[in-house]
Amino acid sequence: MPFEVTILGNNSAIPAHGRHPTSQIVQIHEQQFLVDCGEGTQMQLAKYKIRKSKFDHIFISHLHGDHYFGLIGLITSYHLMRREKPLHVYGPKGLLDIINLQLAVSNTTLFYQLIFHEVISEVVSVLLETDEFIISSFPVKHRIPTHGFLFKEKIGLRKINPDKIAELNFPFQVIAELKKGNDSEWEGKILKSNEWTLPPVAPRSYAFCADTIYHNELIKYISGCDVVYHEATFMEESAERAVLTFHSTAKQAATIGKAIGVKKLLLGHFSAKYENLQPLLAEAKEIFRETELAIEGQTFSIER
Amino acid sequence: MPFEVTILGNNSAIPAHGRHPTSQIVQIHEQQFLVDCGEGTQMQLAKYKIRKSKFDHIFISHLHGDHYFGLIGLITSYHLMRREKPLHVYGPKGLLDIINLQLAVSNTTLFYQLIFHEVISEVVSVLLETDEFIISSFPVKHRIPTHGFLFKEKIGLRKINPDKIAELNFPFQVIAELKKGNDSEWEGKILKSNEWTLPPVAPRSYAFCADTIYHNELIKYISGCDVVYHEATFMEESAERAVLTFHSTAKQAATIGKAIGVKKLLLGHFSAKYENLQPLLAEAKEIFRETELAIEGQTFSIER
Repeated sequence: MPFEVTILGNNSAIPAHGRHPTSQIVQIHEQQFLVDCGEGTQMQLAKYKIRKSKFDHIFISHLHGDHYFGLIGLITSYHLMRREKPLHVYGPKGLLDIINLQLAVSNTTLFYQLIFHEVISEVVSVLLETDEFIISSFPVKHRIPTHGFLFKEKIGLRKINPDKIAELNFPFQVIAELKKGNDSEWEGKILKSNEWTLPPVAPRSYAFCADTIYHNELIKYISGCDVVYHEATFMEESAERAVLTFHSTAKQAATIGKAIGVKKLLLGHFSAKYENLQPLLAEAKEIFRETELAIEGQTFSIER
Repeated sequence: MPFEVTILGNNSAIPAHGRHPTSQIVQIHEQQFLVDCGEGTQMQLAKYKIRKSKFDHIFISHLHGDHYFGLIGLITSYHLMRREKPLHVYGPKGLLDIINLQLAVSNTTLFYQLIFHEVISEVVSVLLETDEFIISSFPVKHRIPTHGFLFKEKIGLRKINPDKIAELNFPFQVIAELKKGNDSEWEGKILKSNEWTLPPVAPRSYAFCADTIYHNELIKYISGCDVVYHEATFMEESAERAVLTFHSTAKQAATIGKAIGVKKLLLGHFSAKYENLQPLLAEAKEIFRETELAIEGQTFSIER
């Protein structure tokens, strides 16, 4: 089952060097989600030949423009394309007013239902839960209310022990119980789940940490995460500026990644002052080797 | 003195085929103006290596998103770039509320002064007048209040008759009066302006007709114009759809251009349904030969 993230924009506030404001796609199993939607996101989707109609859920981390100015364009394009299925938007209070005001001035009544879910940045909230995964928000620390998003597979069913497959001549319902971890009875015999099945595959998780000052506390929200995206607006030489603007340095991002022990750390939200991003990567790698730059157009897999 | 228009976006509502929503730059003499500001305009400026800090006046024709969704990004980028000089924005009522709401949710107080000029679409209004030119708005006919913009040079001073230059030994003030068209006296002799000077060069003008249904009446607002940009969202085969959506066909645009007798007609605002634009051009040229497609990145000169 695929679980991956595709980068559409990796730059901080002012678009520069051909880099775009924040947006990424998280594919988890059969579904694709849009995380943040900076100006030009719909053009970026077109550039990478990704059909915009795929998305039913859009998650916005905070109301700085480089994270949501592209949303109204996408909402309007869906309308012009005669979208019929509902669109769920998850974001901070205030976002719906902005959308509604812009629809009102153009006399637009959307063809489809836009369902807005207000996210309270200060707490951990489950935003969407299916049989297969949970998407939740968690607080980060920025100049205005801001939250990250955690995409987490649920623990699946136990797997049939391959050594036992030849003997497995019980009805489907009995097998289903064993896979759920429940001991079961069949023809007067007690079947122990842990004899017939092996533990389920470990669930995977991905965290998008949005814009944040270096903030140790966020580790508790995303501990055990496989892949983490953390902003790295600046290099350590601009650590003071990072504090002033409530952003992080590459070194700080790596420190978070190392503390969690992630399999892969993705750096993004680069300041326009850096045309060459390699020094940011090098700075982070000194702290934590498993770091990569979130390059636009690239897809990163969340491996088991 | 340069007078030219550079196309940044030529597509209608949904960006498609690498084409962007409406925006163009009008340079008149030393000043550059931005006309409409669809999503991604600041990226288009970067693509064509045009410094965004050049603009002090931005003109918005109406509040359909493909004409203004890029404005807030530009306003915010100016702020982040520590712009100090004021920015004048001319647009319909409602635009300022949208800007202010988006600044408020991000706790932003602009470093510079944003001066909003409300344009009343239903009447002709002078928006900006200098010694050299006048910029005014004029009504067009669309689904919501919409206006075009007319950029017009003022009539300059008369020119010294080159045949008389050898005899021209009067003080500067006397010459200045003659150039203004006033007869003057020097050493008891009456100097006739029309003997010493020739008529001034003809002033040039450019009209941006915004989004409009075919609307004969607009001819009166832009008669005598040298270059006219007119939307051509559809081809004549979709004339009914053009009426329904308050847009024009290529043939209709050409009919307007021909009626005015412009030197050059520019077609733009193409529907996403047309990947190849040549048939639109051919349709227009059948009516009016001096037609060109407003191709992104191209600059069109308003010749004398």
